[in-house]
Amino acid sequence: MSTQTQVIETVRNGVDTAQMYGTLDAIKAQPELGVFQFRASNRWLGGAHNRSTIRAFYGAGQEDDSRAEAFSIDAGEPAVLLGTDTGPNPAESLLHALAACLTTTLVYVAAARKVHLTEVESTLEGDMDVQGALGLSDDHRNGFEQIRVKFRVKGDAPEEKLREVVARAQKRSAVFDIVTNGVPVTVAVETPLAPSPSTGGRP
Amino acid sequence: MSTQTQVIETVRNGVDTAQMYGTLDAIKAQPELGVFQFRASNRWLGGAHNRSTIRAFYGAGQEDDSRAEAFSIDAGEPAVLLGTDTGPNPAESLLHALAACLTTTLVYVAAARKVHLTEVESTLEGDMDVQGALGLSDDHRNGFEQIRVKFRVKGDAPEEKLREVVARAQKRSAVFDIVTNGVPVTVAVETPLAPSPSTGGRP
Repeated sequence: MSTQTQVIETVRNGVDTAQMYGTLDAIKAQPELGVFQFRASNRWLGGAHNRSTIRAFYGAGQEDDSRAEAFSIDAGEPAVLLGTDTGPNPAESLLHALAACLTTTLVYVAAARKVHLTEVESTLEGDMDVQGALGLSDDHRNGFEQIRVKFRVKGDAPEEKLREVVARAQKRSAVFDIVTNGVPVTVAVETPLAPSPSTGGRP
Repeated sequence: MSTQTQVIETVRNGVDTAQMYGTLDAIKAQPELGVFQFRASNRWLGGAHNRSTIRAFYGAGQEDDSRAEAFSIDAGEPAVLLGTDTGPNPAESLLHALAACLTTTLVYVAAARKVHLTEVESTLEGDMDVQGALGLSDDHRNGFEQIRVKFRVKGDAPEEKLREVVARAQKRSAVFDIVTNGVPVTVAVETPLAPSPSTGGRP
C-alpha cells in the first residue's frame, strides 16, 4: 500500500521524478557526468534513399550499452524531388527532431513542476524556397526560412502555468537551441581507393 | 536497344538526371514552383515517448498528395536520460537529418557531374554537456557544442573530384544550412479547456 502510494507520487507524466532529482544531484556533485556524445551512422542505399543507424553513445561517465538493438531511420524524397518516397525527407526529419525535443523537455519540466499533463500535440511547418538548395537563386537560403510550431497542451494546471511550462521547454530544449542558434559542423572526407573496406583508409 | 541505352545514360546514382534537369528548367521558367512547405505532427505518448507523423507537404505549386501513407518516427530517451528507449532521442534524430541531407545532396551533385558513386557512408558525433539543458550551469549551451561528420565516399572519379562533390554538397544542403546557421522558430500555444477537441480553441 505504501509502496503503491510512493510510486504514484514519484512517477509523473511517465517520468520518474525521484530518478530525475537523483540524476541532477549526481551531476551537481560530479559535473563530468554531464558530458555526452551522441552518434549516428548513415549509409547510402541508392538515389535519395539512405538509412541512419543509431545505438551507442557516451554519457554519465561511460560508453552506454543499455540498448539491446540499434534504431534505424530511413530517408527519402517524394517524386517531385526526384526520389521514390523511401522515408521522410531530411528537412521533415529535422522537424521531427525539433518537435520531439520540445515535447520531451516540456514533459520533463511539467513533471518537475508537479503539472500532470493529459495531452501534448504539436504541428510544425517549415518554409523553404528550393531555388536556394538547387543553386538557382542567391536570394534564397538552402534551408528553412522560418519554422512555425503550434502546441496544444492539456493538463491539470491553470493556462498560465501550462504556458510557462512551454516557455521553459524552449529555454531548455537541446534541439531548439541547435535549430535556432546553429552549431559548428566539421566535415571530413575519406576516399578509399582499395576495393576492400578492410584495407581502406588513405595512405 | 536505344531505349535501354537512354535509360542507362539518364539514371545515374539512382537519380533520373533528365527529370532533374527538367525540374531545374521548370523552376527557372516559373520561380514560384520553388516554394515548398514541409510539415510534421507530433503526439506525446507518455514520458519521453512521442511520435511524429509526416505526410502532406506543399511544393511545385500545389498540395502534394503522392504519398499513399504517412511516415512515422518515434522518439525516446535511454534509461540514463529518464526514458525507456522507445526510439532515438531528438538530438540523435537531428544527426540523422543532417547525415541524410548531406548524403542526398552529395548523390544529386554527383549525378549532375557525371560521377558514378559506389559507396557513401558517414558517421556523425555530436558533443553535448547536459548541464546546459538540465539548467545546472550557464557555462554550457543546451544543444550540441560541435558536430563532426566523417564521410567515406567511393566512386569512379579521381579523389579530387569526389572531394569537390562533398564540398559542393555542404554548400547546397538544406539541413546543413539549418544546423550551421540556425533558423527563426516561432512557438504558439493553445491550451484548450474543453474536454472535447471538437470544441477546442481558445475564446
